[in-house]
Amino acid sequence: MDYPKGFLSFGTNIGIKDKTKDFGVIYSEKPCKAAAVFTKNNFPGAPVIVGKEHIRDGVLQAVVINSKNSNVATGEKGISNSRQICSEIAKSLGIAETSVLPSSTGVIGVPLPMQVILPACAQAKSNLKPGNLEEVAEAIMTTDTRRKISVRKIKSSNGEAVIFGMAKGAGMIEPNMATMLSYILTDAQIEGEVYPILKDCADLSFNCITIDSDTSTSDTVVLLSNGLAGSVNANEFKSALLEICTDLAKEVARDGEGATKLIEVRIKKSKDESQARKIGKSILNSPLIKTAIYGGDPNWGRLVMAVGKVFDEPIPFDSLEIYFGGLPVKGADTETLKKLSEYLKKNSEIFVDVVLNTGNKEMVFWGCDLTEGYVKENAYYTT
Amino acid sequence: MDYPKGFLSFGTNIGIKDKTKDFGVIYSEKPCKAAAVFTKNNFPGAPVIVGKEHIRDGVLQAVVINSKNSNVATGEKGISNSRQICSEIAKSLGIAETSVLPSSTGVIGVPLPMQVILPACAQAKSNLKPGNLEEVAEAIMTTDTRRKISVRKIKSSNGEAVIFGMAKGAGMIEPNMATMLSYILTDAQIEGEVYPILKDCADLSFNCITIDSDTSTSDTVVLLSNGLAGSVNANEFKSALLEICTDLAKEVARDGEGATKLIEVRIKKSKDESQARKIGKSILNSPLIKTAIYGGDPNWGRLVMAVGKVFDEPIPFDSLEIYFGGLPVKGADTETLKKLSEYLKKNSEIFVDVVLNTGNKEMVFWGCDLTEGYVKENAYYTT
Repeated sequence: MDYPKGFLSFGTNIGIKDKTKDFGVIYSEKPCKAAAVFTKNNFPGAPVIVGKEHIRDGVLQAVVINSKNSNVATGEKGISNSRQICSEIAKSLGIAETSVLPSSTGVIGVPLPMQVILPACAQAKSNLKPGNLEEVAEAIMTTDTRRKISVRKIKSSNGEAVIFGMAKGAGMIEPNMATMLSYILTDAQIEGEVYPILKDCADLSFNCITIDSDTSTSDTVVLLSNGLAGSVNANEFKSALLEICTDLAKEVARDGEGATKLIEVRIKKSKDESQARKIGKSILNSPLIKTAIYGGDPNWGRLVMAVGKVFDEPIPFDSLEIYFGGLPVKGADTETLKKLSEYLKKNSEIFVDVVLNTGNKEMVFWGCDLTEGYVKENAYYTT
Repeated sequence: MDYPKGFLSFGTNIGIKDKTKDFGVIYSEKPCKAAAVFTKNNFPGAPVIVGKEHIRDGVLQAVVINSKNSNVATGEKGISNSRQICSEIAKSLGIAETSVLPSSTGVIGVPLPMQVILPACAQAKSNLKPGNLEEVAEAIMTTDTRRKISVRKIKSSNGEAVIFGMAKGAGMIEPNMATMLSYILTDAQIEGEVYPILKDCADLSFNCITIDSDTSTSDTVVLLSNGLAGSVNANEFKSALLEICTDLAKEVARDGEGATKLIEVRIKKSKDESQARKIGKSILNSPLIKTAIYGGDPNWGRLVMAVGKVFDEPIPFDSLEIYFGGLPVKGADTETLKKLSEYLKKNSEIFVDVVLNTGNKEMVFWGCDLTEGYVKENAYYTT
C-alpha cells in the first residue's frame, strides 16, 4: 500500500459499543492545507458544527474520529464534548485545538461515552504509526461490510505524490454536500484554493450516490495536503482526486445496507446538470425500481414512472430511450423481457442508460438494490 | 350497505391475468355532474389522457375500469384502445362516448388484451345490477389485500342522500393530485362547481399519504353526482366527502404493500401548509424511519434526521418537539426508550406528533412501515 509522506495514524477499539474498532486518529507532521464539504442537513451533528469552525482558516493537522455514536441531536453538551475531544487530542499531539477536525458516526441522540473517549485522546500520540491508514478506514465503519480505500499516485516536483482516500457509509446515504465520512490525505503540494477542487470532485462523485434517500446529519469529506512531496500539476491532481472520490462513492453505494447489486445510471443528452440530477436520483431512489432490479423483474415501466414523477422536468415520451446493459427496453416484446430478466439476474453491476434527448449534458449516478436485508438491518439497529 | 340511488354496476373476471375480478362498470341512470383529479406524473396513462378529455364538460354517466394492466407507456395504440373501450361501453349503454370515464391499473408498458376487453364492454348493459358496488371495489384491486369502501349519509331535500366512495392502491403510492384509483358516487344534488370541493378534499386526504414515494402514472379520483336524492347543504356535503376521502386514503396507506402498521404523522404549529407537507412527507418517506417502526426500534434520532433533510425549511432544533403516542422522546433516557419500543411493538396504528413551533398550521399525513414483505412483493411483480 502506498501512503502519502508525513501522515501517522491508528485505529483501535476503545469499547464504545462492542469489540470492533471504533476510534481513530490521523496526524500530519506538517500542518496541512485543508478543505472540507459537510452535510446540508439542517440538524448537523456537533462534530460538523465544531469542524466547520476549525477548518475556517484552511489549516488542519489532525483528524479524530469515533464510530458507533454520531454525537448528533445532543444539544450544547454534544458540542462541548466535541470541543473537549479536540482539546485533549491537541494537548497529546502538541498542536492547536483548532487544527483538529472531529468526526463521529453512529446512532443519533445518545450522549458520547466521554469516560472512554477522553483517555483514548490523551494516549493518542503514543499510538501513532507511520502510514497505517487501513486501521483508520476500519475504525470508521458502522454497518459497512468492508473498508473503502482508493489510492492514486501522480508526478510531483520531488518525484511522486500520493493521494490516499478512505470512506465509510452504508445507510442514511443521500449526501448533498458530501458522503457520510471520507478522509483524503496527500503529500502533494497544491497551489491556490483547495476547496473548489474538492467541491467539484464531491459534486460528481459523493453527491451522485444514494442508498436510501436519507441525508445523514454527519456527512463530511475532508482533504488534507501537507505538501511534503512537492508541487504537482493542478489538472493531474484534480483528475486523480476525482477518480478517488468516484471509487469511494461507488464503494459506498455497492456496500449499501443489504445490497446485492451496484446500479449505475447514466443520464444522457439531458438539458443540464439539474435535470440530469433530478431524474438520476428519482430513478435510484425509487423503491419499486430497486426491488425490481433485486428480483430480476424486467419491469422497465417503473423506469418510465420514475422519470415522469419529476414533475418539473417533463420529457417528451416519444424521444425517451431506456437501455439496460445496452439493451433497448422501451416497448419490449417477450423475447426482450426475457433477456432483460437474465441480465438483471446474472450481474452484480447493473448499467442503466436513460437518454432524454433534451440537450447534451451527460451525468452518472450510483445506487444499489433494495432487499430484505436492508429492512432487517434497519428494523433493529439501536436495539 | 347503503347505496346512492340510480347507480347500477358490476365487477367480474374476464381473464386479463388470472382468475380474480379484473373488470368493472359503474353506470348512472341519470347523467351526473362530475369532477376528477388526476396524477401529476408527466407520463400519464392512456386512460388518464382520454379521461381528462371526457370530463372536460363536467358531465359523466359511466365509468369502465380494468385492473392487472394500466395501459401506460403504450403510445398511440394505448390511447386508441382506451377510446375504443369507451365507445363500446357507450354503445352498450346507449350513451355518449364522452360520458364514459376509462380507468386501467396494473403493470406498465404492456398492451391491453383487447380481445377479452371488447366483448366484455359489449355485454356491459346486461350485467348491470342496482347498487352492487362492492363488486367494483373488488374488481379494481391489484396488490391490495382488501377492498376499500367508505359511505356517509347526509340530509337532503328528498330525505337522505348517500355518498359512496371506493378506492384501490397499495404500491406506487405518493399521489400528488389523487390516489391510485378512487370513485365516489352520490345521489346528492350539489349546487355550483364540484371540482373545487373534490380538489380541497383530495388535498387533505389522498394527497397526504405515501406508501413508497413513487407517484403512479394512473392516479385518478372521480366524483359522480346524479342528484336523484335532491339538494343538500354544501358544507355538510363537503365535510362528509372529506371524511370519506380520509377514510379511503388511510385504508390505502394501511394496506400498503407488505405493511404491518399504519403511521399517522401530525405536524403541529408549522409555518404553513407547504412546510408541514414537506416535513410530513420527508418523515413518512424515510426508509430508516419506516423500518425502525416496523422493528419496534426506538430510534427517534431518525425523526430528527428526516426533519433536518428538508433543506429549505430549517427548524430551530431547540424548539422541535417529537412525540410517539403522546410520549415525548427527544433526548429520551433508557426508561423512555423502553416505553417507546413497547409502544411501537404493541400497536398497529402509530401516532407521531412533530411540533415545529414556527407557526400555527396543523396537518395530518399517513403512511406505513417498510417490511421484507414490500421487497418480496415488488421484486417479482411482473414475472
